[in-house]
Amino acid sequence: MKQNKYDESIFFDKYSNMERSKKGLEGSGEWYELKKMLPDFRGKRVLDLGCGFGWHCRFAIENGAKSVIGVDISRKMLKEAKDKTKSEHIQYICIPIEDIDFQENFFDVVISSLTFHYIQSFEDILSKIKKCLSSGGEFVFSVEHPIFTAQGLQDWCYDDKGNISHWPVDQYFKEGRRKANFLGEEVIKYHKTLTTYLNCLMKSGFEITGFVEPKPVEELLNTVPRMVDELRRPMMLLVSSRKR
Amino acid sequence: MKQNKYDESIFFDKYSNMERSKKGLEGSGEWYELKKMLPDFRGKRVLDLGCGFGWHCRFAIENGAKSVIGVDISRKMLKEAKDKTKSEHIQYICIPIEDIDFQENFFDVVISSLTFHYIQSFEDILSKIKKCLSSGGEFVFSVEHPIFTAQGLQDWCYDDKGNISHWPVDQYFKEGRRKANFLGEEVIKYHKTLTTYLNCLMKSGFEITGFVEPKPVEELLNTVPRMVDELRRPMMLLVSSRKR
Repeated sequence: MKQNKYDESIFFDKYSNMERSKKGLEGSGEWYELKKMLPDFRGKRVLDLGCGFGWHCRFAIENGAKSVIGVDISRKMLKEAKDKTKSEHIQYICIPIEDIDFQENFFDVVISSLTFHYIQSFEDILSKIKKCLSSGGEFVFSVEHPIFTAQGLQDWCYDDKGNISHWPVDQYFKEGRRKANFLGEEVIKYHKTLTTYLNCLMKSGFEITGFVEPKPVEELLNTVPRMVDELRRPMMLLVSSRKR
Repeated sequence: MKQNKYDESIFFDKYSNMERSKKGLEGSGEWYELKKMLPDFRGKRVLDLGCGFGWHCRFAIENGAKSVIGVDISRKMLKEAKDKTKSEHIQYICIPIEDIDFQENFFDVVISSLTFHYIQSFEDILSKIKKCLSSGGEFVFSVEHPIFTAQGLQDWCYDDKGNISHWPVDQYFKEGRRKANFLGEEVIKYHKTLTTYLNCLMKSGFEITGFVEPKPVEELLNTVPRMVDELRRPMMLLVSSRKR
């Protein structure tokens, strides 16, 4: 299923009001880790799958990329992305990322931020990425952590007093569709195991070069109420890899 | 801390009665996956860290290994291991695995089954393994999954009727000591994140070549009561790697 939640007005407005939407990369808790895993963009041809407002596309150009193509299913997000973009070297394409069909070896770098948990098959998208990425090219992505997506509801368990008691994990090995609650809206996500993400990469001929479960930086822990709860379970997973 | 739980009579007797102790490798649920990740042993010098009853040592010799050294802290387990062993090419050494100090490049293969969650620092043992493993050598290990060790008690959450509701995850990013319940006894384990296991490997110059969260085979699901619950959360993690 290719759900296009971000084009629904209520959801779009809520998402647009998140820190990561207003402040961009610096408003994303995982950026300080993801940034370290990105390759040197200078002279590179870059593909961003699920580019949203285009923050990573512009970051790549600002850091020397030769050209960037950003793909996203959401018309509303891409309209904003274009409004924010001055460079002629970024193109935005409005299609589901499952439908990409670029030429062989067309890119040097493929990035994707928090998108693959919206698509059903990691194997399928990976085979498309492999095709259009040149040998030695880098593929870096973030996803919601399998521990975060497994049970489905994406909420804590609470005790009688309403305090968090722990994070529930269930149906881990049952991959597939989940109805999650995100910003008070029902959103369809697809749970995959860690084994699926990592083994698909290795079996498709990618070398894993980095693996990070980001946690909040000290500053956020000290200033944002309840941020300390983010140390109780991993929410995201960042992986960098290289096509052999 | 170097706890030697397996030399306590009550615990030893209980452990000795587990399927994996009586039947050996074929009695271990994860063996069918681990087996596939092991290298060709022919002509190889092998180290087994936390060898217990010596099942993997003997498997290596039966499959052509030149020599095997098995290391374990438990005198009782090694006594049984020796009783079960006929080959002259297996040596058992009774020391904590943290204390190994072999010559450089002494081994071609290092294996370790369900042992590293008993030791505090993966980084430290890895630097010792790296030293005594030759370049291009293989390092394959299994551990309890970080999702299994995080909260600490290692038990399910149950509903009012006593049925399993889910698996609890908590204090994931707080690595270190946990008091777990294993076979009705209190056992000290050390939780580590997935990031620690995988990033330590990569930063130490190992290439990750396999990553599997084993799940029960179909036959067990159909014959063993409640085995189906093992699909609800990952219990173990198997990793294969190669020293560059």
